[in-house]
Amino acid sequence: MELQPHERLDDLLINNLKIIQHRHQFRFAIDAVLLAHFATVKQGVTAVDLGTGTGVIALLLTARGVKAVTGIEINPILADMARRSVALNNLSDRITIINGDVRAITTLLPAGKFPLVVANPPYWPVGKGKISPNDHVAQACHELTANLNDFLAVAGYLLQYRGRLAMIHLAERLTDVLAGMRAAGIEPKRLRLVQPFAAKPPKLALVEGVRGGQPGLTVMPPLVIYDDSGNYCREILEYYRKDSGSDGL
Amino acid sequence: MELQPHERLDDLLINNLKIIQHRHQFRFAIDAVLLAHFATVKQGVTAVDLGTGTGVIALLLTARGVKAVTGIEINPILADMARRSVALNNLSDRITIINGDVRAITTLLPAGKFPLVVANPPYWPVGKGKISPNDHVAQACHELTANLNDFLAVAGYLLQYRGRLAMIHLAERLTDVLAGMRAAGIEPKRLRLVQPFAAKPPKLALVEGVRGGQPGLTVMPPLVIYDDSGNYCREILEYYRKDSGSDGL
Repeated sequence: MELQPHERLDDLLINNLKIIQHRHQFRFAIDAVLLAHFATVKQGVTAVDLGTGTGVIALLLTARGVKAVTGIEINPILADMARRSVALNNLSDRITIINGDVRAITTLLPAGKFPLVVANPPYWPVGKGKISPNDHVAQACHELTANLNDFLAVAGYLLQYRGRLAMIHLAERLTDVLAGMRAAGIEPKRLRLVQPFAAKPPKLALVEGVRGGQPGLTVMPPLVIYDDSGNYCREILEYYRKDSGSDGL
Repeated sequence: MELQPHERLDDLLINNLKIIQHRHQFRFAIDAVLLAHFATVKQGVTAVDLGTGTGVIALLLTARGVKAVTGIEINPILADMARRSVALNNLSDRITIINGDVRAITTLLPAGKFPLVVANPPYWPVGKGKISPNDHVAQACHELTANLNDFLAVAGYLLQYRGRLAMIHLAERLTDVLAGMRAAGIEPKRLRLVQPFAAKPPKLALVEGVRGGQPGLTVMPPLVIYDDSGNYCREILEYYRKDSGSDGL
């Protein structure tokens, strides 16, 4: 396997998974790892990852027991890297990468067929937050193409009745996420706020909703990423247990 | 001051405030105290407390610097007790208790005049949670009369532009609160989840919204009520600092 210029091979440290990343493209952050571990995964289900980027969440979901994942990515450079990462991990029979716009979902995938959809969408509305001078990174971080409500509408289209959407977003957009999910027919059922440290406010929110679910939100204790010494907390370290077999974590 | 049968006089432990409570009526819990301290209080403002019960929040708000509070309570027994507590504390010039239904707000108070509204409404929709066999307690805990959206509509009516609604509700109803506030024209701006212990999930949510505010929610670190030994945490104890003067906390 040959890397292209400015590419590098990173180890996901789970199930021996490797991922290709590029110096001038959006690289995954801990958000993606948190989401892959937050989603409720029933063994053997099929899933869709909206805005899969380098494919990190799709790769991690296979380690959690998802049978097959379709990742959709609008950026052709990222989609190509994701495909090569899938091949490199010998997962081409379980992960399909589509280079396309989630807003054109009706031309890409069938309606109402998926038990699980995950999304780590762009966080910032246009006009908020500093837009990256790198157009590729800007597209991954700002709602320059699909926005939150687009992602939610697409999830509502893809999910089967009682199927689950798991997403991560900014805590400051929690009203947008909860109200938008409900408006899309996906009732928020599980919320976990993510704090960098125990004494710091949450910056991120992990939210899982159920299509056609009844109101009633289970709020979990916050996920605190670092202990007071700046090391990953025990829960995060457990994602990387060396004894995690191929049957998932 | 003479107490009626089954009444007792409790000390609010703040500013020497006393409150009359009744054995067979809803008695305030820590929720009310948390809300009174969570609300953003600009000194000298006027406020409305929707569903004031025994008047505990109205009393505490005067200690925080609110100039005048109108408390509305549907239960005539509680409204009468609240009025007598107000008189007992020599606060009749600052607190007015109205025995009425918040749903009839247009007949009770003017529109768009108040900078602050607070509400500790009934938590449970009819059909959820165990309904108290005591009708008075049931009315305070279940949405037998006004429901959440009624309270939010009333707050939207009362608040001046940029005025604030502070409320406490069940964490499991967070979607209802955030989506309902926004639908009522009150944008959620500040959220604090309340956990009984550091390792336990949040049960309550303190939420403050601004009428006509822009989207963008500041999520605070959780408020943890008890330390691991079961004692009140430092923040709650500070509500009861003995040196708190009449200028508020």
